[in-house]
Amino acid sequence: MKAARIYGKKDVRVENIPIADPKDNQVQIKVKYCGICGSDLHAYLEAWGLPTEPHPLTERTLPITLGHEFSGEVVKVGAAVTTLKEGDAVAVEPLITCGKCDNCRRGDYNFCNRVFAPDGAGNFLGFSDDGGFAQYANVKEIFAHKMPTGMSYELGALAEPTAVVFEAIKRSGLREGQNVAVLGAGPIGLLTALLAKIAGADNVYIIDVSTSRLSKARELGIKKTLNPLKVDVVEEVRKDCPNGVDVTFEAAGVQATFDSGLKLTRRNGTFQIVALFGRPVTIDLTNDLIMNGIRIVTTLAYNNSFSAVLGMLKNHQELFEKIITKKIGLSNVVQEGIKTLAVDKEQVKILVSPEE
Amino acid sequence: MKAARIYGKKDVRVENIPIADPKDNQVQIKVKYCGICGSDLHAYLEAWGLPTEPHPLTERTLPITLGHEFSGEVVKVGAAVTTLKEGDAVAVEPLITCGKCDNCRRGDYNFCNRVFAPDGAGNFLGFSDDGGFAQYANVKEIFAHKMPTGMSYELGALAEPTAVVFEAIKRSGLREGQNVAVLGAGPIGLLTALLAKIAGADNVYIIDVSTSRLSKARELGIKKTLNPLKVDVVEEVRKDCPNGVDVTFEAAGVQATFDSGLKLTRRNGTFQIVALFGRPVTIDLTNDLIMNGIRIVTTLAYNNSFSAVLGMLKNHQELFEKIITKKIGLSNVVQEGIKTLAVDKEQVKILVSPEE
Repeated sequence: MKAARIYGKKDVRVENIPIADPKDNQVQIKVKYCGICGSDLHAYLEAWGLPTEPHPLTERTLPITLGHEFSGEVVKVGAAVTTLKEGDAVAVEPLITCGKCDNCRRGDYNFCNRVFAPDGAGNFLGFSDDGGFAQYANVKEIFAHKMPTGMSYELGALAEPTAVVFEAIKRSGLREGQNVAVLGAGPIGLLTALLAKIAGADNVYIIDVSTSRLSKARELGIKKTLNPLKVDVVEEVRKDCPNGVDVTFEAAGVQATFDSGLKLTRRNGTFQIVALFGRPVTIDLTNDLIMNGIRIVTTLAYNNSFSAVLGMLKNHQELFEKIITKKIGLSNVVQEGIKTLAVDKEQVKILVSPEE
Repeated sequence: MKAARIYGKKDVRVENIPIADPKDNQVQIKVKYCGICGSDLHAYLEAWGLPTEPHPLTERTLPITLGHEFSGEVVKVGAAVTTLKEGDAVAVEPLITCGKCDNCRRGDYNFCNRVFAPDGAGNFLGFSDDGGFAQYANVKEIFAHKMPTGMSYELGALAEPTAVVFEAIKRSGLREGQNVAVLGAGPIGLLTALLAKIAGADNVYIIDVSTSRLSKARELGIKKTLNPLKVDVVEEVRKDCPNGVDVTFEAAGVQATFDSGLKLTRRNGTFQIVALFGRPVTIDLTNDLIMNGIRIVTTLAYNNSFSAVLGMLKNHQELFEKIITKKIGLSNVVQEGIKTLAVDKEQVKILVSPEE
């Protein structure tokens, strides 16, 4: 089969490789679509998240098939599989977990204690085991989620990035009727604002310096778009929310947005980090956090979220379809996919089809 | 009456001043004991938390009577008071709040939106209105908490610092049977470890470089004392808690303890800040927080906590009495009180008696 495998920094090769039969607890899927994520870009540019020694659970090293946002059709089932059958359409939750440690047993399997300790980077299919930029993939039964009847495979490929955002909202404790600010209108910021609306938030502000990203936000129904190059964001937000917003989502990941996010958050509110930060930040804990009772909540991946996410994608499919801005074939994954995503701000989600 | 009033940095004067009658919603109390807090030291040394312009709610500027950890006997009641009478023994919750804003109505009155915005420093009796280093004080009825029958006024004066710690534990979500690390064995660190034990924590580690503070901890029944100058703290904690502790309490307030606290916390655990930090800290959000799912929870003062705290002080009075290391008269508050606390590590809580 064809697969896009990463051998190291800036070295991705589309090759013909064999695929093994699924293990007892796996299904084999024919991949239909696999989205390109910002972290694929980091893997490509900086070898971020890739194993430099055998992964403690998968024992895999490079090369590895990239791609972790994928949907497909079940074509083979392992001997112990009971909940899926050939022909089922599934969206993949691409986590690598032991299933045995305290956190796995608690259901917090996204914080499995057996993965790369102490840091959790790269514990995903597409990083430390073969992923979805391929014609076929073997996936654990428990992580292959049956899609609602009639849902397109394109939407199924959005389940993973949507689950990232769903988990952030879940951890933030956001309630219907509360006010929200989202810093950054990239793919994750846009999805965050969209999900906050679906979760019943009242005012949802989305903030970015890119006018094209803000117009995408308006296309998605997020009316309160703010450009800090043009307005005083804090002043604008305080017009409707004089004490600040209940929950701020940081989906940009730099010191400047971190700082302005704190200023937008109400006393005793929540500052929910969704982005990864490339550099350490400096925080005045006493004056910025403690005196205002602000919690910093982080999020990594998801647990037990895919069924809710798939329901949501189905119920709001016209909106989510607007997230998909381009579809390409597997052989073009680097040039028209990963590299395009790095420079073209008009792109939100590019999907790769291994069939083309 | 005699009162210790602060006029500015390093200028505290014990003077004779009149006391007004209590307002309709106030009681007047004869102060029995008032503890000295680290923040009194900051007020004295740096004018920290003191009003430089009229406080928005009290309209007060300097001079102001210091002291916010106090107990006393009700001697007069205002016209609208219905729940207290002359002779009642009360512990004072020394907050200044508007009672009308969103946060006050929610019960989160420690984050009142009408106080010094955006920073909450100094919104306490003893900072922005007259406090407890005086023979008498007028206090709002709702903030004068009747002490359990038979409780000593000394213990009543511990209610405020104990409430600070109780609130931190409440916000951390600590559950019985969980494991805890406390960084810093000063008054707040010792109380945190004590309350974590009372809350049913399993392993409670307390960490400090001061051997005298650690022996105080052992006197209070905290057996797992660790001195980072003598042992590898992370290694010691991981002997019993291989994945780290569930909740880490930061009661020291510097970059080094902040960093080592993060290393002690389990994936998906809670990092609860109790101390104030004199300087900004640097955090690697991605690798230290996000990848490990650690929440940073802060705390400021308390709300709706005094009744539980008074019950706890009564039930464990032999333990809490060990926190009180010295009693002095009002005229000695600076020399034998505030200044002693700054240099003598053997001191935990010094109480001031206005009667002596």
